[in-house]
Amino acid sequence: MTRRLVVVGGDAAGMSAASQARRRLGPDRLEIVAFERSSWVSYSACGEPYFVAGYVDPLSRLVARTPEDFAARDIAVHVRSEVTEIDLDRRRVTVHALDEGRTFRVGFDDLVVATGATAVRPDIAGADLEGVFELRTLDDAAALRRVAEAGPGDCVVVGGGYVGLEVAEAFAVRGWRTKVLTSGPSVLERTLDPDLGAKVVDAMRARGIDVVLETQVRCINGSERVESVGCDDATHPADVVVLGLGTRPEVDLAAKAGIPLGETGAIAVDRRQRTRIDGVWAAGDCAETFHRVTRRPVNPHLGTVANKTGRVAGINIGGGDAIFPGVLGTSITRVCDVEVASTGVRESEAEEAGIAAVSATATGTTTAGYWPEAAPLTIRATAERDTGRLLGAQIVSEGPAGGKRIDVFAVAIWTSMPAQELAWTDLAYAPPFSGVWDLIHIAARKAATRAGSIQ
Amino acid sequence: MTRRLVVVGGDAAGMSAASQARRRLGPDRLEIVAFERSSWVSYSACGEPYFVAGYVDPLSRLVARTPEDFAARDIAVHVRSEVTEIDLDRRRVTVHALDEGRTFRVGFDDLVVATGATAVRPDIAGADLEGVFELRTLDDAAALRRVAEAGPGDCVVVGGGYVGLEVAEAFAVRGWRTKVLTSGPSVLERTLDPDLGAKVVDAMRARGIDVVLETQVRCINGSERVESVGCDDATHPADVVVLGLGTRPEVDLAAKAGIPLGETGAIAVDRRQRTRIDGVWAAGDCAETFHRVTRRPVNPHLGTVANKTGRVAGINIGGGDAIFPGVLGTSITRVCDVEVASTGVRESEAEEAGIAAVSATATGTTTAGYWPEAAPLTIRATAERDTGRLLGAQIVSEGPAGGKRIDVFAVAIWTSMPAQELAWTDLAYAPPFSGVWDLIHIAARKAATRAGSIQ
Repeated sequence: MTRRLVVVGGDAAGMSAASQARRRLGPDRLEIVAFERSSWVSYSACGEPYFVAGYVDPLSRLVARTPEDFAARDIAVHVRSEVTEIDLDRRRVTVHALDEGRTFRVGFDDLVVATGATAVRPDIAGADLEGVFELRTLDDAAALRRVAEAGPGDCVVVGGGYVGLEVAEAFAVRGWRTKVLTSGPSVLERTLDPDLGAKVVDAMRARGIDVVLETQVRCINGSERVESVGCDDATHPADVVVLGLGTRPEVDLAAKAGIPLGETGAIAVDRRQRTRIDGVWAAGDCAETFHRVTRRPVNPHLGTVANKTGRVAGINIGGGDAIFPGVLGTSITRVCDVEVASTGVRESEAEEAGIAAVSATATGTTTAGYWPEAAPLTIRATAERDTGRLLGAQIVSEGPAGGKRIDVFAVAIWTSMPAQELAWTDLAYAPPFSGVWDLIHIAARKAATRAGSIQ
Repeated sequence: MTRRLVVVGGDAAGMSAASQARRRLGPDRLEIVAFERSSWVSYSACGEPYFVAGYVDPLSRLVARTPEDFAARDIAVHVRSEVTEIDLDRRRVTVHALDEGRTFRVGFDDLVVATGATAVRPDIAGADLEGVFELRTLDDAAALRRVAEAGPGDCVVVGGGYVGLEVAEAFAVRGWRTKVLTSGPSVLERTLDPDLGAKVVDAMRARGIDVVLETQVRCINGSERVESVGCDDATHPADVVVLGLGTRPEVDLAAKAGIPLGETGAIAVDRRQRTRIDGVWAAGDCAETFHRVTRRPVNPHLGTVANKTGRVAGINIGGGDAIFPGVLGTSITRVCDVEVASTGVRESEAEEAGIAAVSATATGTTTAGYWPEAAPLTIRATAERDTGRLLGAQIVSEGPAGGKRIDVFAVAIWTSMPAQELAWTDLAYAPPFSGVWDLIHIAARKAATRAGSIQ
């Protein structure tokens, strides 16, 4: 008997699940139907700021696979099709075909909820004015690029996270007077300690981007079109405002259907990506996962996690047995030629989780010090007191090829390696790549010394 | 009572040992005297080809610390001072001061033998002709650079290892007609499978370097000065010949003194860097170490290992307790903008060591495929059959920032991680840095599949 898998949401998690299920079960065993609200499936949201900047062109380059590609693998994908209801009793979804205006129902045996995340909109006046953007979907990216190309003018980015900074750089590259407003003492404050974030702020300011820290946006002003952004102490003129205030899991549909949420507000799943409802799976930004260091539930919105959790769901739906091993929250970006990366937890986060932690910072260069392209590199390693077990790392590289060193920490933390062991590992050295002791070694040794786990 | 430590050889291993011993014991407890045959101590041999090329200037940039720097830390360093005899019975060394012509004796309580490695000279006629060089010491580098600057002309490099290729690039950069002659089917054959080495050959040829494979050098011709290099099937005109035939441990002094050697021909040491003679230590290229994958004795000549083993010796001499954890032979270089790196063992080496192994190759790009600077990246992962335990990896990156990914494999192999686990690790992703699945993940997954350790 042919069963039917319905996938709600056609980006990384949903389509990974569909693909993996199809690899294991042919169309005679499993029918697969995916519904996506936007016009696109399987695209790289992470590439959108670079499309706005003009580094990447055309927009279709950000699309990994089209509905036609999936059709060729017997996966039916319907875009511009919003699932408006999940009926768990009747095991069917209600779909609204946006362009045709019609609504229809489709039954399922298995269901993957991969509704992703949605931008946090500030609860302030003027957020709906023309000229106020967010950047989530490819349609957002296309709209924002048209604006960027029509400039220059004044661009105000609200929020100092990854997307906000990347968008700010995109507008600055295009000649806009660009300003970033953030409430925190620094930027990227979810992943970087403030003193390290300050290096990013310096690099942005050196490029002419005005970064305003510790400011509260109170209103967006204008009649029809945006004209300015009002903070407590200043009003910032704006022809375009980009809201980069982070994202929250898109769980309204699931919650309304009665699919239980977890303590983070995302859909609760086990390590096989099963929700608490039989035959209903969740993956990607809308699903909760757990942190390997703190062992606590987390809900990171990262493309890497979406792909992996989708894959796990798909393997299991297809009859395999895959376990999602958890996350470290590893992330990286490049802002104004500064590479920024982090993994695991910072000292403050470790302490919050009840782990006694120490941190040590090593400063050096991306290559041998005498190499012509040597650029400042800073690595902060966090380790458990006494044992030296590695808990986290932060990297700021003021030149190329420093940031991806975070992956070495990610694997070391993954295996609970003590810092004193990482300090002796056999890492590659040649002058164009590092010092003979990589800065990883030095940071690890310093962390172990501070933890008291090395003599 | 003040004891005396004598260090024979003033490069990385010897001076690391001296520095670490000094950190733990002040001059009231330990006198430290180091003898170095050449004019330099504590220098970066790995940087020499880049000095010849002119990427690095002046030569002193390659020197990490001078004898004066060490003197300030109460470490007496004598350059141009060759130790000609170690007398284990009387616990003293004989030193020949090369410039003054005099000979003297110095007693020791502890002795560190850090005599390094010496270039393999081919047993062929003409190897002593003027215009025939090797590249080991800074003096060699200075001489070779003078020649390179006096050109251009015809340069023939004999040997397809790291140093040979780096020197070939240096001469090519300076406009010389440059040719590499090697007996193997490819280049870098100690660390790369031939099909991967072929990518390096292609890059060199694209830069105008003539790479002649599978040829045997029979003689070097000339009267006084070199004129050509004779192979079985051809004679190659040469104004300069650089011999890059690898290195062997410099153990004559130790062997003559009766310090036991190991099966690799290097000095046998335990994991604390103790030779079999009480109070006599060895570190660096002249000392044997062991391979963490094969568990066999090896004698890699790598600056990383020299620094680490010297550090271990020095900590132990200073009263600490350090254990050298072994090597993976991790190495990296950049030749004609191709980054080449390897760690652990290749499939053939694993099989020789009695480990049933499989390999899998993943091809992709250094960044997201749509990123403007995306360059071809190839990763080959080797894993143990059935278990999937990672054994080795090779990387060829035809653009920047690919090669250092080898460190992720180095840490994974270090901890005996199975490929199927690495395939799920939380590595950093953003479009300028990788695909959402890093090619590391893909290579690991393929290796696990081939090993039969993943469903």
